[in-house]
Amino acid sequence: MRILVEIAYQGNQFLGFQIQQQGRTVQQQFEKILKRIHKHHVRIHPSSRTDRGVHAYQQYFHFDTELQIDNQRWKYAMNSALPNDIYVISVQTVDKNFHCRYDCVGKRYRYKVYQGKHRNPFKSGLETFIKEDLDFEKMNEAAQQFIGSHDFTGFCSQKTEVESKVRTLYQSEIVPTIQGFDYVVTGSGFLYNMVRVLVAFLIEVGKGKRRPDEVKKLIGEKNRNNVPFTAPAEGLYLEKIYLFPKDLQKDFGNHIKIHYKKSL
Amino acid sequence: MRILVEIAYQGNQFLGFQIQQQGRTVQQQFEKILKRIHKHHVRIHPSSRTDRGVHAYQQYFHFDTELQIDNQRWKYAMNSALPNDIYVISVQTVDKNFHCRYDCVGKRYRYKVYQGKHRNPFKSGLETFIKEDLDFEKMNEAAQQFIGSHDFTGFCSQKTEVESKVRTLYQSEIVPTIQGFDYVVTGSGFLYNMVRVLVAFLIEVGKGKRRPDEVKKLIGEKNRNNVPFTAPAEGLYLEKIYLFPKDLQKDFGNHIKIHYKKSL
Repeated sequence: MRILVEIAYQGNQFLGFQIQQQGRTVQQQFEKILKRIHKHHVRIHPSSRTDRGVHAYQQYFHFDTELQIDNQRWKYAMNSALPNDIYVISVQTVDKNFHCRYDCVGKRYRYKVYQGKHRNPFKSGLETFIKEDLDFEKMNEAAQQFIGSHDFTGFCSQKTEVESKVRTLYQSEIVPTIQGFDYVVTGSGFLYNMVRVLVAFLIEVGKGKRRPDEVKKLIGEKNRNNVPFTAPAEGLYLEKIYLFPKDLQKDFGNHIKIHYKKSL
Repeated sequence: MRILVEIAYQGNQFLGFQIQQQGRTVQQQFEKILKRIHKHHVRIHPSSRTDRGVHAYQQYFHFDTELQIDNQRWKYAMNSALPNDIYVISVQTVDKNFHCRYDCVGKRYRYKVYQGKHRNPFKSGLETFIKEDLDFEKMNEAAQQFIGSHDFTGFCSQKTEVESKVRTLYQSEIVPTIQGFDYVVTGSGFLYNMVRVLVAFLIEVGKGKRRPDEVKKLIGEKNRNNVPFTAPAEGLYLEKIYLFPKDLQKDFGNHIKIHYKKSL
């Protein structure tokens, strides 16, 4: 039986999602609990592997089990054993062919920035501080130009090893907040560090050090050296995982092209 | 020259204020910076030593220096070198006779609890979660009875080693908030774990497992075994340090008795 688990976590005290040789990770927390319940190792498969310090308002993973436990009890058992910084939102049974990673057709991230005269230690680990005034209009103008299908080689970590660096963004916008702004970006998928590089670039635009009309050229150049900064992990939230094309179409229109990871 | 530094910090990622053999502490962060500036070790003296995971909206420490650096530059130098979870609010020069710990005539703590159907991982480390409904009126009735001078032997860690366990509370109240309540307590001083034991007891009152009219008896018994719980550190904030009797009198009236730690 394949079980799909919807979770949220504060990334502050995790070395990331994926299990490591040493240190606290989200995967490790769940596999420890599942091993105790099953009396053998059970591997979990997430929709997305978040980095050290990155948060998730919504994340999914699945695992296979031979145990007959109903979904409400799975939820209760996991939440009782989990630390305070992870929470299981829901548990459901899914088809054996369903795969959290390959069926994921889109993700939304939110990057939170607060501004002010001085930093607030109580936002440490949760939002990124920028002292300077920023031109949100220019930032948004630049953000909009990332919408569509582009080769994002110039906007990801140079360590990224994937066949194609083309990704499709359905949404890319600056949303002003009470104390700063959120950058909200939805796409078919994201390359390593991509959101944090995009945010760092948009902040440069907001400071007047870059111009919105440079975006097209920078995308074309495919050279990360031209976009050298990476925003810190603390402001980054995985906000939504699209597991079904219809949900993505509901939010962005029936005309959008769905990009599957799984070869159909 | 003696320098007085006002700071705030999120306690989440600290093993507490006081320097340890190993691990990240607030004292260690400052002494590292001061050593770099002075080229020799400089000891800092806080008003209060907060425990692992405890936060401070306001905390003070002093240190002595032979360097001629103006206060604004001290503030800037420290804030530039500090991690995001500590912030220097102000720096001032004080008399050589002033001592952060011995001149402290009072402290206020705030303990934050949020309630709801399920815990929120984004409040982890910052507020304590209580699932149950609580009777705030009864809790406040109990809280009020701690006001005054009492021997708090029954409400502190049994490891507490001090001459006298008599402390004077000027304020002790439950303040309802949007999602729960704050317990706000101001006193001449606090014993080890005292606020966390008081909160745990008040929560028991709120659940109906204890009654407000038990307070007098429990204080008289001086037996910690009768008050067995300690609330977690994550909800606890050191909120205000009273360094001058006049400030305490302004908040609680000229009639209050000032308790000095320093023998005058």
